[in-house]
Amino acid sequence: MIVDAIKSVLRDVEHPVSLHEPSFIGREWQLLKDCLDSGYVSSVGEYVDRFEQQLAQYLGVEHVVAVVNGTAALHVSLLLAGVKPGDEVIVPTLTFVATANAVSYCGAIPHFADSEQSTLGLDPAKLRQYLAGILQLDDGQWLNRNTGRRVAAIVPMHAFGHPVDMDALNEIAGLYGLPVVEDAAESLGSCYKDRMTGTLSSLAAISFNGNKILTTGGGGAIVTNDKVLAKRAKHLTTTAKMPHRWQISHDEVGFNYRMPNINAALGCAQLEQLAGFIERKRSLAETYKKTFSDVVGVDFFQEPEFACSNYWLNVLLLDEAKPEICNEVLEALNNESIMARPSWTLMHKLPMYQGCPRMDLSVAENLEQRLICIPSSPFLSQAGDHA
Amino acid sequence: MIVDAIKSVLRDVEHPVSLHEPSFIGREWQLLKDCLDSGYVSSVGEYVDRFEQQLAQYLGVEHVVAVVNGTAALHVSLLLAGVKPGDEVIVPTLTFVATANAVSYCGAIPHFADSEQSTLGLDPAKLRQYLAGILQLDDGQWLNRNTGRRVAAIVPMHAFGHPVDMDALNEIAGLYGLPVVEDAAESLGSCYKDRMTGTLSSLAAISFNGNKILTTGGGGAIVTNDKVLAKRAKHLTTTAKMPHRWQISHDEVGFNYRMPNINAALGCAQLEQLAGFIERKRSLAETYKKTFSDVVGVDFFQEPEFACSNYWLNVLLLDEAKPEICNEVLEALNNESIMARPSWTLMHKLPMYQGCPRMDLSVAENLEQRLICIPSSPFLSQAGDHA
Repeated sequence: MIVDAIKSVLRDVEHPVSLHEPSFIGREWQLLKDCLDSGYVSSVGEYVDRFEQQLAQYLGVEHVVAVVNGTAALHVSLLLAGVKPGDEVIVPTLTFVATANAVSYCGAIPHFADSEQSTLGLDPAKLRQYLAGILQLDDGQWLNRNTGRRVAAIVPMHAFGHPVDMDALNEIAGLYGLPVVEDAAESLGSCYKDRMTGTLSSLAAISFNGNKILTTGGGGAIVTNDKVLAKRAKHLTTTAKMPHRWQISHDEVGFNYRMPNINAALGCAQLEQLAGFIERKRSLAETYKKTFSDVVGVDFFQEPEFACSNYWLNVLLLDEAKPEICNEVLEALNNESIMARPSWTLMHKLPMYQGCPRMDLSVAENLEQRLICIPSSPFLSQAGDHA
Repeated sequence: MIVDAIKSVLRDVEHPVSLHEPSFIGREWQLLKDCLDSGYVSSVGEYVDRFEQQLAQYLGVEHVVAVVNGTAALHVSLLLAGVKPGDEVIVPTLTFVATANAVSYCGAIPHFADSEQSTLGLDPAKLRQYLAGILQLDDGQWLNRNTGRRVAAIVPMHAFGHPVDMDALNEIAGLYGLPVVEDAAESLGSCYKDRMTGTLSSLAAISFNGNKILTTGGGGAIVTNDKVLAKRAKHLTTTAKMPHRWQISHDEVGFNYRMPNINAALGCAQLEQLAGFIERKRSLAETYKKTFSDVVGVDFFQEPEFACSNYWLNVLLLDEAKPEICNEVLEALNNESIMARPSWTLMHKLPMYQGCPRMDLSVAENLEQRLICIPSSPFLSQAGDHA
């Protein structure tokens, strides 16, 4: 039934059907050629500036720093938020591995938190109760009383493009003076109560990987309204080089995280089409929603009440947490050349993170066994001109 | 006199004159367009495989793993060489900061070594004597007797494209069983005794940044003849994802270091022209050499006897170590819109590396005050068709 329903939506589409494929139907060629002709394909060049400015304008935010990918954006955002070696950082267990890895790159330890069913992201109420139980104030710092380590930040991740309940989360963070770093890798264009994800905390990371709603080939961005943080972000991502006409000197351990100009040129062309991509993706989601309204045993996951999501990856939730059913559906779809995949393996189950601190993760564990991602490319929408 | 000599070489060239500008005179546009048309611009796509294979063939090496930049290539190469947190790694003080930063990313400490005047790279004789004095064997490991830390690897850097004396260096490394990781970021196409740099040790890192002889916008490669290391390199640079049709699971802390397909497409087109680029750059070097043969107070730096260099950046060495003369020349050239720059500030003088262990660095300190890099783009050569 599930497989048939998906096949009915995708019946007119050429197979194999990817999970998410970019559309290059705008000025991609023109801007790439202009970039080549300029001779500036690397870290120097006007497209990086232009992409940063246009993205900032789109998001309604002061500063965007384009980088090499979303993981790099998150890594530097965490450093800027003050995460130090030996700290703990609250991250959801239901996320892509980059969220936890970025914490590791800082020498810090991910501390896994549970998700709520209505957003698939961090559960603020559960987190509030948990933190009240484990945090203790010591010399002005909030320590995990079980490990003695400082808890340094909270990283909500807007899973599959659906916004976390950020007001509730920011309130909890405020109780302990913890910085919030939004992992908005998947949620470019998604709104939470009329504000864009990526602008709901002091720092955010976005991804423009090939499977994202907007792609630069590989790329990411650090987003902030804070001028000082933006300047530090630019400095840290450009090897911490000191400005000088010819001297080459650096004042701290920086990173080679700049987005090349050629990737930014692609991004500029994609950004011009972003509103259309979102429209088509929401239209596709609507089609899936209708199609699954009368399929038993499964729900099409819909955006939270407070959100207008980009529906980056469309999600089905089986009624029952039965891995064998999940696998059966995945097997059938993939055998039909329709790409589908389950939840990421939960972070606390990965070998390198099994020993990390965590709260009760029963909701995420339940979701993991019920979740299936299905094809979500914008061009799959019947509403689009290019379907 | 120095300024006039450079101006005479560049008299027919449009100003401003960059230090190193790429040439896109091959199939760049064709391959980029093909890449866009394929829809695969990101980490999946045939150009990455093609670039890796073609580069391996060019180098005469078994395995190439394309990554996001040269810094990332060096970082992962060091991890693969077994560098652990708290180790020390021998690196030249006369290098770009990425060499030392890559060591820092491993949680290790750079240990700075001196250069020799004939190569501008690590001085094997001086290093041999130094290591004999400071290394002591402890439980099968060679420790720095002054710090108690393990010395884990040696990283020669082929400065400005000129090969280090690798036979001598490999011999020293062999005495202590230390792995050698070549930092060949600048020396693609340079030969040491008829073998390509990047193939003279178990692991090497190459850069394809916009200022390099071959550019992918931003990019790098890990080079090795070892199948196991190559497989590990691919795994670590692709988030350590386990192969599976649909499951998303990772078995260690990996990195998002893959080169995007669109950057690889550019690289494939550039690789077709590499021999020509080298020819033109060597011809330009010959012109500089002749021009400076009768200029007093300065030498044009020539490739070591055992080398055939790519002359990535042409280098002048003033006879006298007088920073004020160096600055005068740099000021005059840059004021004439001819880009020129001094040596990198030596690593042991940067604030974050001042406390690191080091040997006597007097040769590098002398070179730092005498060295000037001058415009080196391949199209500057009179010999080229496209001059």
